Amino acid sequence: MRLPLRAATLILLGVLVVTIPIGHPRAAEGPITGFPGAQTDVQRELEARFDAGLNPDDLRTWMEHLSSRPHHVGSPFGREVAEFIAERFREWGYETAVETYQVLFPTPRVRRLEMVAPTRFTAALEEPSLSEDRTSDQKDEQLPSYNAYSIDGDVTGELVYVNYGVPADYEELERRGIDVAGKIVIARYGGSWRGIKPKVAAERGAIGCLIYSDPRDDGYGRGDVYPDGPYRRADGAQRGSVADMPLFPGDPLTPNVGATEAAVRLDLDEAPTLTKIPVLPISYADAEPLLAALGGPVAPGNWRGGLPLTYHLGPGPAQVHLEVAFNWDLEPAYNVIARLEGRERADQWVLRGNHHDAWVNGAADPISGMVVLMAEAKAIGALARTGWRPRRTIVFTAWDAEEPGLIGSTEWGEHHADELRERAVAYINTDGNGRGFLNMSGSHTLQRFINEVARDVTDPQTGVSVFDRRHARRLANGATEDLAATGDHRINALGSGSDYTPFLQHLGIASLNLGFGGESGGGSYHSIFDSFDHYTRFIDPTFEYGIALAQTAGRAVLRLADAELLPWDFTAFEATVGRYADEVIALTDDMREETERQNRLLHDGRFELAADPTKTYAPPDAEDPVPHLNFAPVRNALVGLAASAQAHDVARRALVAGGDRLSTDQAREVDKILFRTERAMTHPDGLPGRSWFVHQIYAPGFYTGYGVKTLPGVREAIEERAWEEAQRQIARLADTIRQVASEVDRATQFLEPAGP
Amino acid sequence: MRLPLRAATLILLGVLVVTIPIGHPRAAEGPITGFPGAQTDVQRELEARFDAGLNPDDLRTWMEHLSSRPHHVGSPFGREVAEFIAERFREWGYETAVETYQVLFPTPRVRRLEMVAPTRFTAALEEPSLSEDRTSDQKDEQLPSYNAYSIDGDVTGELVYVNYGVPADYEELERRGIDVAGKIVIARYGGSWRGIKPKVAAERGAIGCLIYSDPRDDGYGRGDVYPDGPYRRADGAQRGSVADMPLFPGDPLTPNVGATEAAVRLDLDEAPTLTKIPVLPISYADAEPLLAALGGPVAPGNWRGGLPLTYHLGPGPAQVHLEVAFNWDLEPAYNVIARLEGRERADQWVLRGNHHDAWVNGAADPISGMVVLMAEAKAIGALARTGWRPRRTIVFTAWDAEEPGLIGSTEWGEHHADELRERAVAYINTDGNGRGFLNMSGSHTLQRFINEVARDVTDPQTGVSVFDRRHARRLANGATEDLAATGDHRINALGSGSDYTPFLQHLGIASLNLGFGGESGGGSYHSIFDSFDHYTRFIDPTFEYGIALAQTAGRAVLRLADAELLPWDFTAFEATVGRYADEVIALTDDMREETERQNRLLHDGRFELAADPTKTYAPPDAEDPVPHLNFAPVRNALVGLAASAQAHDVARRALVAGGDRLSTDQAREVDKILFRTERAMTHPDGLPGRSWFVHQIYAPGFYTGYGVKTLPGVREAIEERAWEEAQRQIARLADTIRQVASEVDRATQFLEPAGP
Repeated sequence: MRLPLRAATLILLGVLVVTIPIGHPRAAEGPITGFPGAQTDVQRELEARFDAGLNPDDLRTWMEHLSSRPHHVGSPFGREVAEFIAERFREWGYETAVETYQVLFPTPRVRRLEMVAPTRFTAALEEPSLSEDRTSDQKDEQLPSYNAYSIDGDVTGELVYVNYGVPADYEELERRGIDVAGKIVIARYGGSWRGIKPKVAAERGAIGCLIYSDPRDDGYGRGDVYPDGPYRRADGAQRGSVADMPLFPGDPLTPNVGATEAAVRLDLDEAPTLTKIPVLPISYADAEPLLAALGGPVAPGNWRGGLPLTYHLGPGPAQVHLEVAFNWDLEPAYNVIARLEGRERADQWVLRGNHHDAWVNGAADPISGMVVLMAEAKAIGALARTGWRPRRTIVFTAWDAEEPGLIGSTEWGEHHADELRERAVAYINTDGNGRGFLNMSGSHTLQRFINEVARDVTDPQTGVSVFDRRHARRLANGATEDLAATGDHRINALGSGSDYTPFLQHLGIASLNLGFGGESGGGSYHSIFDSFDHYTRFIDPTFEYGIALAQTAGRAVLRLADAELLPWDFTAFEATVGRYADEVIALTDDMREETERQNRLLHDGRFELAADPTKTYAPPDAEDPVPHLNFAPVRNALVGLAASAQAHDVARRALVAGGDRLSTDQAREVDKILFRTERAMTHPDGLPGRSWFVHQIYAPGFYTGYGVKTLPGVREAIEERAWEEAQRQIARLADTIRQVASEVDRATQFLEPAGP
Repeated sequence: MRLPLRAATLILLGVLVVTIPIGHPRAAEGPITGFPGAQTDVQRELEARFDAGLNPDDLRTWMEHLSSRPHHVGSPFGREVAEFIAERFREWGYETAVETYQVLFPTPRVRRLEMVAPTRFTAALEEPSLSEDRTSDQKDEQLPSYNAYSIDGDVTGELVYVNYGVPADYEELERRGIDVAGKIVIARYGGSWRGIKPKVAAERGAIGCLIYSDPRDDGYGRGDVYPDGPYRRADGAQRGSVADMPLFPGDPLTPNVGATEAAVRLDLDEAPTLTKIPVLPISYADAEPLLAALGGPVAPGNWRGGLPLTYHLGPGPAQVHLEVAFNWDLEPAYNVIARLEGRERADQWVLRGNHHDAWVNGAADPISGMVVLMAEAKAIGALARTGWRPRRTIVFTAWDAEEPGLIGSTEWGEHHADELRERAVAYINTDGNGRGFLNMSGSHTLQRFINEVARDVTDPQTGVSVFDRRHARRLANGATEDLAATGDHRINALGSGSDYTPFLQHLGIASLNLGFGGESGGGSYHSIFDSFDHYTRFIDPTFEYGIALAQTAGRAVLRLADAELLPWDFTAFEATVGRYADEVIALTDDMREETERQNRLLHDGRFELAADPTKTYAPPDAEDPVPHLNFAPVRNALVGLAASAQAHDVARRALVAGGDRLSTDQAREVDKILFRTERAMTHPDGLPGRSWFVHQIYAPGFYTGYGVKTLPGVREAIEERAWEEAQRQIARLADTIRQVASEVDRATQFLEPAGP
């Protein structure tokens, strides 16, 4: 059946090419890895037909509907959203299922915040309806502002301002003689993922935690506030999860297993990812009287925000009473899973996902990405109706319960872990989308691949490729050294913050996260003002960047699904891991030097002499000297990986240049080795203290939350000054690198004339 | 008479040493340059007696009186201040004169600022009386907030926000399509000296200029505002001169000559240092409605200040009406000059100065420095009463009319130029003094000298030397490389901003500027709240840093006055000029690289591609390539200077080590050569476009105002891309360096056994 299909494709193209509007991308000239010879042209023609199936009016219509009412987990409209999406997938020809999990999702019963001294003030904790925003008045269905997985609590105490509330901030407080034990802390959003703030505050003995949006970071300091502009209003608040996701994401009661009805669940009081203290997010209008009432030392210069007051640290005289209580209910999470069976390697799954649940109406987050995924699914469905089938199976997924903690994707990933480890080729994620420049993050074995895609997608505003526009931006912003040695953009490593996490970091599936941004800043994130009105005024009014993202992610899906041989490349991976190794070695050297410097200054009494005796500013604590670690195992392993990566690249190019083809069975075998190299980057024991995270190259930081830590076992051990652990992790990392190299060698054997 | 004096000194010391309180500085052990052998001990004992004559109660009493009423130029109390100081000098045994000049000093007749569109608002332009500040209610005698040497004007126009109003800010505006021609600009204080703002605005065609104090830089963003804390209130404003002092300071009508009664004066309308457009300084309370009413693009991130609003650029819709008119009167400026005749080299003058005029009450600026100078004069007068006389003549000077433009010192310097060039050894300046760490700036031929002084003065808060405390601070703040190769602190080069300018930069007299600070921030500068109440609450309540400054500057005066041979050192000077040369060479290379990079990006259209097409952001202008300049003449001259400096140092040490002494006549000759080496750093033509500034190593920047430009002829020509001029200035700089080297060689000949 293969040849007739291709012929049909070619015949159809004669028509379709001329219908592509003028100004659309001229198909690029370069080869596409995995599509030898004429297959490149065939693929580009397929992609042109795919592009022709994308329609910005679809995106607009779907967004208007899907953001027309609040649709958080367990809400009435949330279910309708899932059903609407499932219905579309079915219409477009996908084998579609809604897979439901029962997940812990607390909603607020009591939210009370008042200042009880030195004056009284009761926080409003309320975002107002605006006539300029048609959905802002849906009070009955809106979740009020709160932080999910805060424990219940009723506490009163003196207030302390802790800046972003990261560990270094508490060290500064200590040097000023300020202890937060028994106090309530107020931290500003930013500097870390929000869930880190109550975690660190609790570690330091605080009894409650307020998180507010400072206008310098997220308000009038950024630009005009809504509805005059896109930024956060004084009364705007940021909802969000504060579960300890760096321990494990997903349902807090069912770590490692799918939260099916029958799953064995932890008791609520033993769930380790709930906070240890009550937490509440507040607006800057609510924060201002509290901060204005703080006494104590003036905050350090870089701790000061944009409110018109002098930031003080406290503690007190401001005292606050914080009370929160929640409905600790299980709610159904509806994942929509839509399959288009592959024609040849149906057991190889290319996964493409975006979540559908929102904190409130969620036009930007997540619907702007969701409608992109739907547009791709519709266009690919249309291709399939013409008789085309992908070589591999394509699986579109629309996740529920991402907002409270990547729950839909995590439970599905845990539930289907064995078949995913066996079959998943890669996972392509999107989430909210904006206007501007393509952001590409993910597995570096796919760096070359996604750069090829970026060269083939046209930026809607300028008519050059999104690759070139991104390059221009970086150069214009002053970057001197920019592209990797290969001429590709360096893609960023993934930490956490969206649904790639279970696939990449728990299951070892190569992942990419894609989106546009940089010209559509705003402050609607996790507020009631993340609405269709806001999105279509300020973010991507024409949905042209929605189309550009569909062209990007759609090409990624189509190429991964159709390539004769999966387009994995290990040279960029090896170069990247080499750079990370340089970083952790430099980190150790810098820490050693800084520790020596600091201990010498302590010994010489310089800190006491430098301090203003009218203020409390104690010297830092002395630290044990930083030993020299043996990084040789990693260096040696990298030498091996470099050789393996190089040999693989040479063999692959030679195969294409020679016009040789593997048999289907051989290709299938090589594919399996290639896509499972990401599994080889995992270790069954996981990272120290958090066994759920098994990837040894990428992880969210234990104290950064979303922010990535590359080579996490080694890097975090060094950062925590756990030298013996660091040395163990270095050995493990070397093993991991050797394991990857050995898999690469195994794949290469198939490509060589002699065969394996 | 010499020996009996010394004997008397030594006899007295037996008593005095035991009266020094415990905890005071143990006299340091090291030698003092210029005081060979036992003379070092004699000098240290003299300094101990000097210290014993310093009394913090004197400083407090004098400050309370001298800041009890406003005392600007031409005010009734200003005359009383001069007379009070003169009377004290006479009491203490000095030959004292009040030298009077007639100087242009405009005072406001009309000050009006109102917004006329889109809403109406009238600026208060008024600092209020506070019950916590006893002198704040002296409305009849206070000068209101204004900028001296603004021209009269009555203009109405659209408003544009120009950030700090430096040339780079206008380039950013241009890229955004904003032209200030015909507009009124509003700039925030900071980023340059205030007088640069109207100068650059006028160059760009603006018709008026407002300068406001932004609370982020100078208000609640820094700390608690007065009277809760020391920082600037919302209604506080900063007075100050806006004459074009980088052209020439002093009386605008009498450049280059003393403003005596008989002096020939320029007509007002040809006075080149008056502004070209009307200017008014305003408070942030007055600025807030204006900034809030601006439309147009949102200001770039680093342009945004601390007001609770989104900073926009305009132009308009805010329109303002600005009207200012002044009494253009000549006023008498009273300089108090007090001499203590030297016993041996009376024609060598050691000058020590501080100004006495203030914008209003001026407790910090200038009285905190003035009372330090008075304490030194009193203690030295007391030494003289015991029979001691300095080897050289000491001249204490209290300047009037510093605030409007360094006028008293400049007119005196111009008036007495010939004898000063002949006789002035050095000029030691102070101005407002604070608490904390010693700041040392000035001529690098005195770097070693002033470091020796700093090692011998005890920090009152910690009991270590002020040298060590400053060192501790730098190390604790993270400086890795800190001291110069000699083990000395590197002193900063002087730009402008106080009375050293005429001496250093017009007359070529080696100068130092000294003061403590770093622990006494505040926002009283040039406001009615620079009061005794403010100073004694927030700046130096015990006057212990006033005493420390008197010990520092007093030692400098005593050592310069008494040294057997003046303590000039050229090795630090050579090393410093070498570093400056490295800087200008690197500057040229960086400009070349940046120009190439930018022109390449322009050629490739990268700026257009990077720009958000929904906003105006034009590419920067293409620049001509930066040629390679021939810096070899400077490098070669520096090689020569290094050899000369080294030979001088060796000869000087050999002389001391050998126990040899020069005859008095020989020493006098060497002295003259040494102190005139600073004259050798000048060129009679001055700097391009500003002949008043003749020093070739240090000058205030033409576009920075107070900020120094070292090697100014070369550096500013490069910055302005005037390549031929740069090459000419390089040749001139090389000549200057050779001229200094030749003078050093001439001095060295006297020190060598063979003699000259």
